[in-house]
Amino acid sequence: MNKATVLGIFCSLLAFGNSHAADIEAGKETAAVCIGCHGVDGHAMNPEWPNLAGQNIKYIENQLRSFQQGTRKNDLMTPMAQSLNAEGVANVAAYFNSLK
Amino acid sequence: MNKATVLGIFCSLLAFGNSHAADIEAGKETAAVCIGCHGVDGHAMNPEWPNLAGQNIKYIENQLRSFQQGTRKNDLMTPMAQSLNAEGVANVAAYFNSLK
Repeated sequence: MNKATVLGIFCSLLAFGNSHAADIEAGKETAAVCIGCHGVDGHAMNPEWPNLAGQNIKYIENQLRSFQQGTRKNDLMTPMAQSLNAEGVANVAAYFNSLK
Repeated sequence: MNKATVLGIFCSLLAFGNSHAADIEAGKETAAVCIGCHGVDGHAMNPEWPNLAGQNIKYIENQLRSFQQGTRKNDLMTPMAQSLNAEGVANVAAYFNSLK
């Protein structure tokens, strides 16, 4: 194998590692803690909270990470977000995105 | 008029002053600066930005005020939100809420 082939394999593995599909069903289970406020159908119980049905995956993921890191602050959301690992963030985002 | 009547009229006027309906058509005009990112139909052009179609009025208003006050920080949204007065906030929120 030449260097280019090795590099190609390495990059493919790297891409594979970063691109495993989020699991909507797992996200639904993880989102059990979310639906008390954001609704089982992604329509919030209170107009002060956002509807999440159909929201963009990247946007939900970024906001959850912002709550985790404290760059977006909310007394309710910070502990909720901090309870999720990276996989949980991806799965919950995919779940809410999948709702109409 | 007795004191209770005067108080009643005063409270009614106060309530009227706070409850004038937001103007969706005016909101559509004001939202001209929003649609470059959030889409003319409230569906964002980039998955890193939120869809706003059908979002709750109170939630949009609260977030715009948070951007205005700096309690929520975003380099794109802060100046946008700060360009709106209270009426603009209410109208823009009503406009995006009205979209499917």
